[in-house]
Amino acid sequence: MPYTLVLLRHGESTWNARNLFTGWVDVPLSPKGRAEASRGGELLRAKGVLPDILHTSLLKRAIVTANLALEAADLDWIPVRRDWRLNERHYGALQGLDKRATRDKYGDAQFMLWRRSYDTRPPAIDPEAPYSQSHEPRYAGHPVPLAECLKDVVARFLPYWHDAIVPDLQAGNTVLVTVHGNSLRALVKHLDGISDADIAELNIPTGIPLVYELDEALRPVVKGGTYLDPEAAAASILAVANQGH
Amino acid sequence: MPYTLVLLRHGESTWNARNLFTGWVDVPLSPKGRAEASRGGELLRAKGVLPDILHTSLLKRAIVTANLALEAADLDWIPVRRDWRLNERHYGALQGLDKRATRDKYGDAQFMLWRRSYDTRPPAIDPEAPYSQSHEPRYAGHPVPLAECLKDVVARFLPYWHDAIVPDLQAGNTVLVTVHGNSLRALVKHLDGISDADIAELNIPTGIPLVYELDEALRPVVKGGTYLDPEAAAASILAVANQGH
Repeated sequence: MPYTLVLLRHGESTWNARNLFTGWVDVPLSPKGRAEASRGGELLRAKGVLPDILHTSLLKRAIVTANLALEAADLDWIPVRRDWRLNERHYGALQGLDKRATRDKYGDAQFMLWRRSYDTRPPAIDPEAPYSQSHEPRYAGHPVPLAECLKDVVARFLPYWHDAIVPDLQAGNTVLVTVHGNSLRALVKHLDGISDADIAELNIPTGIPLVYELDEALRPVVKGGTYLDPEAAAASILAVANQGH
Repeated sequence: MPYTLVLLRHGESTWNARNLFTGWVDVPLSPKGRAEASRGGELLRAKGVLPDILHTSLLKRAIVTANLALEAADLDWIPVRRDWRLNERHYGALQGLDKRATRDKYGDAQFMLWRRSYDTRPPAIDPEAPYSQSHEPRYAGHPVPLAECLKDVVARFLPYWHDAIVPDLQAGNTVLVTVHGNSLRALVKHLDGISDADIAELNIPTGIPLVYELDEALRPVVKGGTYLDPEAAAASILAVANQGH
């Protein structure tokens, strides 16, 4: 019997709408993002993909996306686990900066390196800076990064995948993981065996459930999974790829 | 060091608004109920009462109340546990019936007995009836009642209190319990040592956080606790007492 994993990237946040680097800054969904989240839940319901358990990050744009999606799917009651290991990539000193202004200042090459390189970190944030998370109570007892590349996200996400999500799948649950663009890229890189170079090209759209059927060895039955609304996904992937341009 | 317990009764549901017996029927909040929930969260934030962990029932009117309150309090990220033992009292065959019509049909004495007697159950629901929960997936593996009196609620709530909530308090957490009128009456009866007769008089208003400071022996420092908005609580208690009249 294959396992069913459902991935959902949070809807548009207020800082997505303003084109700012966000990372671990805990910004809310925009009205458009809330509508995307509800629609994601309606898609789950319409397609009969009914999660038994939810995993989210500790950031409200993922948490509220899950709340709204489950409300729309009439599945508010399923158990939920939240963990910092599912957070978005920490964007370091870029957090709070305008993406377009950053690109104009540092040039296309540096901008794309920070955005899409697998193993180049952005500059570290000062732990005392306004957009640092080093002193937030929710992370007490855990290491708060000062900047992360995607490789760092893979390194902190995969232990949670193996220790918390896989056991839920193996217990027969349909598992919903509602997180962020880069934490999803980290997971999909692992699942689909995407190379360090090729992962740069992968963009995952917001608000559209992506279903992976996995075999006993946790390998995708269909590489790349299946979006519940393939046309909307294709249009959105194009828009995300053009961010900052 | 005393423990801090915060009780929150869900906001108005669509069936509260229509004056129907609800019990375990999973009806949503009304727009007024959603506003009450958000205001409850704003009160938590304004008074600096910041929960570290949340416990809710498996019913969406409690779950969404908690979601909206925590969103307003900027505490979406705290861990949450949901359990059927925190559900509202099961109203048996009365579920879905109009309260006023039921009172007119059976008379004041029987109506008040069903609503407020400690140990008289309403008539049992047929497990195959439309408003029975005997076949709902969320209760798989747990006993689904066919009708409950308040004594039944005490009996199924207190094991969860002792096994799940008390350990969270003893670990130093401020614990938020977002549930229902009768599950709260069951807990408050236990905490304040209210007699089987006197509990009939206790009504707990919706949407107003009720804070109990508990001593080492889990006895309330102030009997009855402290509402974060005492004037609104007093007005609401009066309105609830008049329900069905």
